[in-house]
Amino acid sequence: MKIQIKQVMTLIENESGDYSAEVRNIFIDGNKIVSLDQAPEGFQAEKIIDGTGKFAIPGLINSHTHAYMSLFRNYADDMAFWDWLNSVQSVEDYMTRADVYWGTLLNCMEMIRTGTTCFMDMNIKSAEEKQGEESGAAGAALESGMRAVITRGLIGSVGEEYPDQQIQDVLREREIFADEDRIISWFGPHAPYSCMADNLQRIASLGKEYGMGQTIHLSESETEIENSIKEHGCTPIKYVADLGIFDIPTVAAHCVYATDEDIAIMKEHNVSVALNPKSNMKLGNGFMPAEKMLEAGVNCVLGTDGCGSNNTQNMFSEMNIAALVYKGANKKAQCISAQDVLSFATKNGAKAIGKEGELGTIKEGALADIVLLNIHEPQFFPSTNLISGLVYSATGAEAETVIIDGNIVMENKILLTIDEEKVFYQCEKIADRLGMFH
Amino acid sequence: MKIQIKQVMTLIENESGDYSAEVRNIFIDGNKIVSLDQAPEGFQAEKIIDGTGKFAIPGLINSHTHAYMSLFRNYADDMAFWDWLNSVQSVEDYMTRADVYWGTLLNCMEMIRTGTTCFMDMNIKSAEEKQGEESGAAGAALESGMRAVITRGLIGSVGEEYPDQQIQDVLREREIFADEDRIISWFGPHAPYSCMADNLQRIASLGKEYGMGQTIHLSESETEIENSIKEHGCTPIKYVADLGIFDIPTVAAHCVYATDEDIAIMKEHNVSVALNPKSNMKLGNGFMPAEKMLEAGVNCVLGTDGCGSNNTQNMFSEMNIAALVYKGANKKAQCISAQDVLSFATKNGAKAIGKEGELGTIKEGALADIVLLNIHEPQFFPSTNLISGLVYSATGAEAETVIIDGNIVMENKILLTIDEEKVFYQCEKIADRLGMFH
Repeated sequence: MKIQIKQVMTLIENESGDYSAEVRNIFIDGNKIVSLDQAPEGFQAEKIIDGTGKFAIPGLINSHTHAYMSLFRNYADDMAFWDWLNSVQSVEDYMTRADVYWGTLLNCMEMIRTGTTCFMDMNIKSAEEKQGEESGAAGAALESGMRAVITRGLIGSVGEEYPDQQIQDVLREREIFADEDRIISWFGPHAPYSCMADNLQRIASLGKEYGMGQTIHLSESETEIENSIKEHGCTPIKYVADLGIFDIPTVAAHCVYATDEDIAIMKEHNVSVALNPKSNMKLGNGFMPAEKMLEAGVNCVLGTDGCGSNNTQNMFSEMNIAALVYKGANKKAQCISAQDVLSFATKNGAKAIGKEGELGTIKEGALADIVLLNIHEPQFFPSTNLISGLVYSATGAEAETVIIDGNIVMENKILLTIDEEKVFYQCEKIADRLGMFH
Repeated sequence: MKIQIKQVMTLIENESGDYSAEVRNIFIDGNKIVSLDQAPEGFQAEKIIDGTGKFAIPGLINSHTHAYMSLFRNYADDMAFWDWLNSVQSVEDYMTRADVYWGTLLNCMEMIRTGTTCFMDMNIKSAEEKQGEESGAAGAALESGMRAVITRGLIGSVGEEYPDQQIQDVLREREIFADEDRIISWFGPHAPYSCMADNLQRIASLGKEYGMGQTIHLSESETEIENSIKEHGCTPIKYVADLGIFDIPTVAAHCVYATDEDIAIMKEHNVSVALNPKSNMKLGNGFMPAEKMLEAGVNCVLGTDGCGSNNTQNMFSEMNIAALVYKGANKKAQCISAQDVLSFATKNGAKAIGKEGELGTIKEGALADIVLLNIHEPQFFPSTNLISGLVYSATGAEAETVIIDGNIVMENKILLTIDEEKVFYQCEKIADRLGMFH
């Protein structure tokens, strides 16, 4: 469809990478932005959106979550990390692929409503079908209109039937969604402590073979570091790097306890690091060395983590906390600026999945993943610095209209792709069946 | 007016102080809640509100802010504390009482829209009139329909004309608003480093004489501690305690560097401590010892601080961060629960200003300060734990209808007390005049 967004304040990135807010006309043709200035020759808009009082920003990229975990929202709060992990996993054993499908739809609803258009998922069931309850997380993401990198959390050691089956499932899912641009299949080895070395290495070689990347949890908790040093004589990051698994595109989640050497390793292997400040705090894991990562030139991206350890998928809340907490931890108000955080949630997220210049930016030729925020609200006045406002003042609920891959997914707060009442009903039923109402 | 809120999920506090969510009928007569069950005899509702899909919570209490500073929103970001203070104060010198009035109205708009009904303000100009631009912060708060404890930030040493004049202004403002239940006049000695000892003592004795409390900034930055130990040989808290100024109701803001001895002093003198986690992080001051304060039984309350050091007045965002950041700082997921934080923002705030049982709670006989949240949104599903949802999932934008002192101030997101367009226009003009657009 040909869409014109008229006279809208737009988040523009200049050559030096700095952001500014400028009034533009955005012309969309198919799934691409074709102009920010004049209508291309012969452009006939089928849809015109008035940009008055709105702020057009690139759709936010949530670089680490477990979407099905929206079902765990507010379920296991204020628990220590390992108790929490056990309590969550004991429920997961009873979850079906249909549960994953409905939970992911609920998660997508919250993400779209708060301006996120793309997410990296680590789930527990691969799709059997392309649509419906057996399509799992990938099918739910496709149906929601969102863009997603779908990974299945892989655990166990090679040789066992279970991980072999998991890997076959992942490759099968990849086949099912092969012709869908919005769904990217990656591997998701859960963590060094839950995947054996040979398994991690096999995934990396399969990644090379099939052109797939991976996401993995690294150095999230103190206990993980202690155990790794006991077992392997080094940090988890050093350990997996020595296994040679960083030759494929990798997004490492958390890295709370990354040492200077670990950070150098990340930089050397072009590993992207997903900051999850809220999850790290909620589970009592602490604060990751974000400033050192930035200084070292590591590609920092931002994620909410699953609802089980955050309770919301609101990336504006995550950006706000990311801009604040490292200032507190380093006692340095100049540490991690609003512009830094905005980059984590947009262009850096795009770079992490090989979409630099295509996603996370509003410019001619980029994919049309655009969020229109209503900034005619008190939290955006006076309008002296709208970029700062995105990170420090916004609630996330300003998202009014969301365009993904050129399609209008939400218009004036009405979701066009998902039957919300049906999802609410199903998720309440599932939470009840899983005994989450206590 | 007689109002009935029909069949609404309501935040109820039981004898042990725990919260639960229960469906109730709320009957309001005049400025009080008269029943949560059956209509009182002869009760004829003039207004009936359908509670379906709504969650009735006590209006939140923002226990520390500088409302006029909404004009500084996004103006001086990512600056070290003392540079920030100087840059802000250099602009304040050019601010008029009218600026304070418009800035406070803007602040009230954001607070009402995010579920706050009462705030403690420290401003820079006392009212000359009861209404209009010369009514300053107190007049703006009154006009907005909010409840407020208004204090004028006092600086300088006694004997000088300036502080004497300031104190006369405060007492005059108190007279002007003496017959307004929603406006409480307190003193606001800025800080030990900006007020001389005799001045602090005079304020305390005037407080006794006039039955007024005070709010003061204490132990906010490392430099403040160092200077206090150099000058007075002890911490700022010990120093002011020894001056004997804690005999009047006191809300101490920040206390980031409170020692164990300081905390014991706070407890001994029934000083309430206002946590401002976002401001403390943004200015690089660090994390206050919230868990120790709680363990010691100090009355902890919550504040956003001014927009100059936070950029939003959204108490839901502040509650969320308060529930997360001390877990991170103490590496302890069980530290500061959702219920704790909810108490800080409601009943503890009420206790701090002598309104225990009247504010910060929904029960028969309490003042009718009630916020109706729309919880029929993804961030509140599954609905396994709505109390947790208030602190961990809500954006603040769920606030739909706000009742203060029995008056409907906002209905279905329409503000009934403030001409928002006029306030936006005036605040843009003021920010421009003060040279904030750069």
